[in-house]
Amino acid sequence: MLIESVPNISEGRNLKLINSIVRKIKSLNSYLLKDIHYDYDHNRSVFTIVGKPSMVFESIHIIAQNVINLDINNHIGVHPRTGIIDVIPFIPVKNISYQKLIRMVDKFAMSFFRKYRIPVYLYYLSARKEKTRVLGKIRNKGIEFIKRLSLEDKEFIPDIFEDYIFHPTLGVTFIGVRPPLIAFNFNLHTPDVENVLNKARKVANEIRESNGGIKNVQALAFFLQSKNTVQLSINVLEADKTDFFEIFQKIVKKLNENGLILKETELVGCFPSSLIENIVKNVFKTNNFTIEKIVKFQK
Amino acid sequence: MLIESVPNISEGRNLKLINSIVRKIKSLNSYLLKDIHYDYDHNRSVFTIVGKPSMVFESIHIIAQNVINLDINNHIGVHPRTGIIDVIPFIPVKNISYQKLIRMVDKFAMSFFRKYRIPVYLYYLSARKEKTRVLGKIRNKGIEFIKRLSLEDKEFIPDIFEDYIFHPTLGVTFIGVRPPLIAFNFNLHTPDVENVLNKARKVANEIRESNGGIKNVQALAFFLQSKNTVQLSINVLEADKTDFFEIFQKIVKKLNENGLILKETELVGCFPSSLIENIVKNVFKTNNFTIEKIVKFQK
Repeated sequence: MLIESVPNISEGRNLKLINSIVRKIKSLNSYLLKDIHYDYDHNRSVFTIVGKPSMVFESIHIIAQNVINLDINNHIGVHPRTGIIDVIPFIPVKNISYQKLIRMVDKFAMSFFRKYRIPVYLYYLSARKEKTRVLGKIRNKGIEFIKRLSLEDKEFIPDIFEDYIFHPTLGVTFIGVRPPLIAFNFNLHTPDVENVLNKARKVANEIRESNGGIKNVQALAFFLQSKNTVQLSINVLEADKTDFFEIFQKIVKKLNENGLILKETELVGCFPSSLIENIVKNVFKTNNFTIEKIVKFQK
Repeated sequence: MLIESVPNISEGRNLKLINSIVRKIKSLNSYLLKDIHYDYDHNRSVFTIVGKPSMVFESIHIIAQNVINLDINNHIGVHPRTGIIDVIPFIPVKNISYQKLIRMVDKFAMSFFRKYRIPVYLYYLSARKEKTRVLGKIRNKGIEFIKRLSLEDKEFIPDIFEDYIFHPTLGVTFIGVRPPLIAFNFNLHTPDVENVLNKARKVANEIRESNGGIKNVQALAFFLQSKNTVQLSINVLEADKTDFFEIFQKIVKKLNENGLILKETELVGCFPSSLIENIVKNVFKTNNFTIEKIVKFQK
């Protein structure tokens, strides 16, 4: 039984803290951490952890214990967030059904709440209420929105809480099972920030599925001060069933049509194997490649 | 300790025989056989085997034992060959030096000779004589050349033999350690066989390193009767240190300049992980992908 979790924390600047967490997870098991992505401007770190459920849960506790002294109210960053341990997605990898993982994650969420007293939203496949099913619809509206929620509409309150619906310093945490997604950033040539950011926002609006754009695509545009670069940041849902190569080409075309030039991209986390097979198939016009045919030779 | 071997046999039409070999290797260990590639026109099968040395050697004996009743004199196919078990390359994969593998392969070659009485050329890194170091320079000249060799120049005779330098039915076998290579076929749109084959031969001549073409590239052009298709077949040497993406693009450009159109490609065997990283890096303009970031999700 193998699962993936991709905890996002609202801290991407304190490298000493981040490296210390990385070391602790690696000392648990050197294969657990598949990727760590942090960013000054987003001020966010994304851990990609794959392993047996017990080890994955333990890794998340290591992360949580190391950030519980932070304060979400002091957090500055371009990425939307409403908690220090902002979101903890879970994805089945091998020999485990969505149903079973949902039950395990329900239990994990309860133990997480009991340990840290952080109110939990169960989202996406773990959701109990339609209004809190989609992470972005709540989280992206920000802290003040969450704080006001219970007064306005009980459907919006967290699924697990007791004394308060927003932890005074740690905020709330979204926990849920979801299919794999690809988090991918397009960093743009930025000779003129305002102009490029406006155009990137226009592109983000147009490609977003929720606006009738590209199926499975979520998109936001940011200005990264530390890099003096505008970034179009996308999530591609249903990543293992999606033609990401085609989506990538569509987005690059759309960028170019708007006079935007791609400088480089960043992968946040991991790629599903089907995507790698898809790239090789498209680039080489070949039908007989699978990831099982990759051999890693020693250097 | 992990090694790769890519035995090529001069039999690609008898699917019953090939499938029976595949089953026998898999029953030894289900992970050993990374790929099997066979082709009617080449009349050749290429097994890609990765595992512990003892298991890899055992797999090769399984293959050999299953083809020792064939006769190289009856073989028909477009691919150059001088033996039923034509060539057995070995490549270090993990925790083994070239030096150590060369010594192991020397021993394997002796036991191979003692068992099947097939004269053995030790080639490439295992070579003992400069004139028999490069496989293509001898093998590609054909059976008659090999048979005539000892009369003309002792430097050309096999490294291991006793009563004859060419086994009456099994020919000779090339055994040697070499770095990883990529075997890759470009199948071309073939409206007019003669014209396309001539052009493909011209391209093969031009891209071949030995003619001053592309570094690390070996190339041949074939007509595949069963597919009514002309094929440009290449080997890329030093595969793990080579920019195959660039080579691929150069060759496609050269094909197009000569009025040739790529229909599809075929990978023979496996790709080194560095190549996959290279493709992703080039296609997505990204610097932060490694194959460790591939997650294989269950279907």
